[in-house]
Order: sequence, then C-alpha cells, then structure tokens
Amino acid sequence: MTESELKRLCERVKAASRALALIDTKAKNGALVSMADSLVKNIPYILKENGKDISWAKKKRLSDALIDRLTLTSSRIESMADSLKTISKLKDPVGETLESVRRPNGLLIKKIRVPIGVIFIIYESRPNVTSDCMGLCLKSGNACILRGASDAVNSNRAIFNVLTKGALKFKLPKDAFRIILDKDRRIVESLLKKTGLIDLVMPRGGESLINSVTKESRIPVIKHYKGVCHTYVDKHADLLMAQDICFNAKVQRPGVCNAMETMLVHKSIAKEFLPPMIRRFRDAGVEIRGCAGTRRIVKDSKPAKEIDWYTEYLDLILSVKVVDGVDDAISHIMKYGSSHSDSIVTQDKKTAAKFLKETDSACVYLNASTRFTDGGEFGKGAEIGISTDKIHARGPMGMEELTSYKYVIYGNGQIRQ
Amino acid sequence: MTESELKRLCERVKAASRALALIDTKAKNGALVSMADSLVKNIPYILKENGKDISWAKKKRLSDALIDRLTLTSSRIESMADSLKTISKLKDPVGETLESVRRPNGLLIKKIRVPIGVIFIIYESRPNVTSDCMGLCLKSGNACILRGASDAVNSNRAIFNVLTKGALKFKLPKDAFRIILDKDRRIVESLLKKTGLIDLVMPRGGESLINSVTKESRIPVIKHYKGVCHTYVDKHADLLMAQDICFNAKVQRPGVCNAMETMLVHKSIAKEFLPPMIRRFRDAGVEIRGCAGTRRIVKDSKPAKEIDWYTEYLDLILSVKVVDGVDDAISHIMKYGSSHSDSIVTQDKKTAAKFLKETDSACVYLNASTRFTDGGEFGKGAEIGISTDKIHARGPMGMEELTSYKYVIYGNGQIRQ
Repeated sequence: MTESELKRLCERVKAASRALALIDTKAKNGALVSMADSLVKNIPYILKENGKDISWAKKKRLSDALIDRLTLTSSRIESMADSLKTISKLKDPVGETLESVRRPNGLLIKKIRVPIGVIFIIYESRPNVTSDCMGLCLKSGNACILRGASDAVNSNRAIFNVLTKGALKFKLPKDAFRIILDKDRRIVESLLKKTGLIDLVMPRGGESLINSVTKESRIPVIKHYKGVCHTYVDKHADLLMAQDICFNAKVQRPGVCNAMETMLVHKSIAKEFLPPMIRRFRDAGVEIRGCAGTRRIVKDSKPAKEIDWYTEYLDLILSVKVVDGVDDAISHIMKYGSSHSDSIVTQDKKTAAKFLKETDSACVYLNASTRFTDGGEFGKGAEIGISTDKIHARGPMGMEELTSYKYVIYGNGQIRQ
Repeated sequence: MTESELKRLCERVKAASRALALIDTKAKNGALVSMADSLVKNIPYILKENGKDISWAKKKRLSDALIDRLTLTSSRIESMADSLKTISKLKDPVGETLESVRRPNGLLIKKIRVPIGVIFIIYESRPNVTSDCMGLCLKSGNACILRGASDAVNSNRAIFNVLTKGALKFKLPKDAFRIILDKDRRIVESLLKKTGLIDLVMPRGGESLINSVTKESRIPVIKHYKGVCHTYVDKHADLLMAQDICFNAKVQRPGVCNAMETMLVHKSIAKEFLPPMIRRFRDAGVEIRGCAGTRRIVKDSKPAKEIDWYTEYLDLILSVKVVDGVDDAISHIMKYGSSHSDSIVTQDKKTAAKFLKETDSACVYLNASTRFTDGGEFGKGAEIGISTDKIHARGPMGMEELTSYKYVIYGNGQIRQ
C-alpha cells in the first residue's frame, strides 16, 4: 500500500467514524447480532483459513503456547459469537449524560458521552481479538483499524470478512472497520503518524511492541502491557485462605496477564506457610525461584535472580520472596511490579488499608485472587484489554473506557462580562 | 544539568509524588493558604524580578501582546493568591469513591480517585501559570515539574521560591515541586523520555511547541492547543441576540483561546445581519476578512484566504463566511476548526439539536458566547488549561481531570473458577 493510498484509507475511516457516531442503538445491536450469526454460519470457512495459519506456525516451529493461542475450534468461534450477542445487550454508552449543572447565569452545562473517533488496535496472535474489538468499537460508536499479528493473517482475514458481511446488512458506514493484512511494518509506522485521522492507538502485547509504538506514535497511546502481579501473604493472614488464593492466582490459568508471578511472604509466618504451599505448587508442576530467605526454608528451590523479580513468566514458574512486612512488600511491588494487579492476604484491617492505599496498581485486592482483573468479572460485560496506564483508562477497559465526552451548553443569549 | 543529575531529580520527584499522594486534605489546604500569604508578602520582590524580564523583553522588541502577558502588577499577584485560596476551599478529589459494585461472588469492587503521579507542564510566558499549576497539582496530590518560557525566567524563579517557602511550612515532601530554569532545550527533550518517572506531559502553547512535544515524548501527552472557535448565525436566529453573542465572542478579550475567530452566517439572513454587525465590529477596531459572499454584501471587506480559515488570530481580526445552512456550517467547522468551542445562534430546536450533536468539539454552545469555555465559568473553581484532546480530559481541566483511579477489591477468599 502506498503512502497516499494509506492516507486516503484513513480519511475514509475518519469520515465513516463521524457517521457511525450518529447511528442509533437499534441498528448497532442489529448489526452485532447479524455479525454473530455470520460467524456461526461460516465456521467451516474460518476453520479452514485458521488451519493455514496453524500449519505455517508449526512449520516455523512456533511455541506450543503460541500455537494454542492461535488455534480456533468450533466452540471458540461460537464463544466469539456469544460475546457479540452479549455486547448487543449491553447499554449503549453513547449520548449518556454524565453530569448536568445549571450555572448562576442560567447556562445549562451538560457533559455528554461521545465516541472517541478512530481507534487503531495492534494485537497479538489470538484471532478472537478481531471479533471482540470490532464488536466493542461498533457498539461504542468508534471506527477501528485493526492490525493483528502476521502469524494469524488468514484467520483474521476470514473473521473480518465474515463479520463485515454481517454488519453491512444494517447499513453501517462501510469504511468504519478496516483490517491491515499487509505484513509491511512501514504501514504501522505510517499509521502511527496520522494525527487528526486516528484518535487513539492501543497496542496489546509485549515490551518490544509497546516500546516501538510509544516511540513512533504521534497519536495518544493507551498501553496494554505486561502483568507482573504479586500476592503478599501477611503475618495476620488466614494461611489456608492464603494458600488457596495463591494457588489459584498462579495455577488456574498461568498464561494470562492477571496471573501471579511473585509471591511475597511475611518472615514471621514463612516457616509455617511455605512448606505446604510449595508442595502444592510442585504437585501442580510449578517451578519455584526463591530468595535467600525462601531457600533457607525450601532448600531445593532454585535461586531467583534480580531479573526474575521483573519477569512476567506467563508459565508455571513462580518467584518467591520472604519480606519484613507490609512496607517491604509495597516497596518490592512498586520497584518490580507493572502496576497491574496485586493482592494482600490478611485479617488485620490496618495492614490491609495501608496496602490498598499505598500500592499504586490498577487493581489492588484484599483476600482475593488477582485472576479477577477482567472486564467480565468486573461487570463490564466485555473488555477490549487491560490498561496499564494511568491516563484515560486504567485496568479493565470496557465500552465506557472507549468513549470521550463533550460539553453541550444551552443558553439564551448569555455573554461574558 | 547533566543527564544523570536530571534522572536523579526525576527519581526524587517520583518518590515525593508517592508521599504527596498520601498527605491529608488539611495539610494540603494549610499549605495552599500559606503559599497565598507568602505571595502577597513578597510582592515587591516578585515585581522587581518581573521587571528584569520585562526590560529584557523590551530590549528584544517582543510584541506588546507578549509583554502584556508577561507583566505582573500588585493586583495580578493578589489574584494569583486568591486563586490559591479558592483551591484550598475546593473539595479534595483524592480518595473519592467513583463507583462501587458488589459482584455475585461477594467481591466488593470500588473505583477510587487517585492522583496521576508526576506531571510535567510546559507553558508560555504568563507567570501566573506557575502559581495556578502548583496549587492545582498540590491539591490533587500530584507532584509537578514546571518549565515556563525562557522570557519569564526571573519572574518564575521568584514566584516558585516564594511559593515553596510557603508550602514547606506544612512539611510537604520537598521534592514534589520542581521548576526547570535552565534554558537548555535538551533538558526538555530528555524529560520527555523519562517514562516510569513522569506520568503525564501537558504542553500549553502554539503549534510548534505542541508538535515538537508530541513528536519527542514517550510519555502520554494532553495537548492544550489553539482555539479556532466559530459562531454560526442560523437563519432562525434572533439577530439582535446573535449580534451581541458574536460581538462578545470576538471583542471582549480577543487574545484568548475561547475567542471567536470565524463567524459563519446563513445565506438567507446575511444581507440583513451582516451590515449592522460589521459596523459594530469595525467601530471596535475589528478587521474583517470575508469570503466572496460576504464581500458581495460588505464590499470593502478584505478577502479571506484559505489560510485565514485555519488561523487563530488572538487579535481584533475576524474571518466571515456566508454558508448554505447548518450542514455547511458543521462541515466548515470540522474542516478548519480546532475542536475547541463552537456556537450556534438559532431559535429552531431541530437545527440546534443537529448542530450540538454533529459538531465534534470539546464545547458546543446554543445561544451563548464561546467565551464561557473556562474552568471557573464551568464551576470547576480553577483550571490548569483547556484540553483539545479527546483522551483522558476534554475542554476545561480542573482538579478532577488531574486524577486517575484505581480499583480496590475487597474479598474474603474468592478464587476464580
């Protein structure tokens, strides 16, 4: 695609975003249901295209975890369709009055929720993201430009085609959804400079993707970065509860960003807590990398290196550190964590309050597993990702987080004195 | 300042921001009042230092408008002190519960307002911004790094010294406020790359500043860009009301971003509306630059060039265009405007609703002057600027817009199924 073709494409998407912002809820919901039906009807076609990506991934000897993320099945496609139907049932955020104030001079100032405009989403290999993002953007009135991983290009093309066929029955502006399938990396670089045409960039992925997007973009970016999540087991913890929470946070689904990567244990209960906890982890196949204090208790633990404390394993590996108390735990989290999700297990109210206030993470938990950081679990219906930024949106992002606002001011001739 | 000194400075500010986030409201309010008192007590010193900047500006033959913005008087300093006292009386946004939801599994999820962290503010010559920004950042629990224009370096140093002397009586973390007086431009370039240490950049200024900051920054930026504001006089307007609104929007204070730069007039009332309106403008010294349609009616008007429609004059100059109707007006605004503040004058409800819905600006007005786009006029007490972005904050930014949030989740042993 040439630079001038790309610019024209963005101009068309921008114009479509203005039309989409004005579409009524009924048409948007109709389109979502039609897109869901279209997905289910076309399962054989999507699976065939997905098969091409999987063969290629195997030929390239990509990791099993990656191939698993890439792989679609009938039931995975059906659950994509279900998500779209769920989105169709959620409240339309566009047009909601967020605040309303009458000023002494008679002006009525209303703060009204509006779509952001055009959102450029760059994501990793999971093809279901194509469908989730399109659904959430549509319902929140945003046009989107999607760029999935090149490993999933056949799957993404198939899903995108099937979805747009469904959507267009409802006369949505046809340029409101675009997918970039061309593998040329310069296309991304160029899109990141289309200020005025693209309003927001959301990169979902690892450190190198996030860094290159942040460096190149002239457009506001909301980062969806790694989760180095901690659980701190306090000296006042219910140790059986702590064991269940830590086990769940690490083992239930280790490959996701809200899984625990480091367990912090108060020194005065470490001797009692660690041996049965570590046994349970090892029975589940978890490799332990411990600090010196941990290794005095769990003698056959591998030593944790400095780099381990920063690492998002996304795997059955756990860093374990014995700490002096809640202050030490907070300092560790602030230094090594990614401000994603961190939990304290304690029965002491004062210690809990301190941890919850001073730990500056998107989600801080008392006596619960970090695995709950999720749009669905938070009651947002669906999520477009989990922001690790503090600007605009933090933590799980649903449809509301895909909106901006405008002030509408009603007067009857007011002028400024 | 060397790169490693700059990094250490940022680390100290970051650490101070964590302490400031936890300071109670009473101490913050005490510090604000003490800062206000300190300003008033030191008026002679501040005026002496301001005098140095003014002499220098005159020697450099800077424009009268710029010298006016730079100039402090006793009453201007007193009004800076009043702003700080006003801020001390406003509600502390930190710790406010924004949402609270009990999930079916018993988890209680609270969304709590928190400070953003460290804010880097780059601004133009008005020295009062130093005081306003420090006050708003302090009350909202944010540390800040200030960088004023080099023309105002003596004034800014004086104000900053006086304010910090006042603040430190209240044992605020002393590194929470820093001002960069070194004129070396590379310091700004380096600060814009301090991700992890600085959380937000707010440039206030013209196109070249905004562009260079957007290009260089690796940190999220909220732009405070120009205001190319419009008033559209519809065929259903009360023409006398329209005249007052347009006159106020252009003439009451032409040098500010919410002043009108372009007046759009419906073709069917142009012949009746324009002659008396233009006469009134000219009596006030306003230069008119008209489209062909305007010049058919106001024969001695200068022609408007294409560039005029994009221009923020900040002066007694007005572009005037005759349009076919509300659609034409909206198209013009979307093409040439800066999405800041735009007004329609009409008595027709349907036309008004269309304009207010379809004009994608931070503030859209019905039958009122665009001059009301202002934190104080909106009831926010004070403002740190007016965002022309759609991400995080849009329009006038008060203290609430200087906050983020975190989710605090209370459980009693919940694990994910």
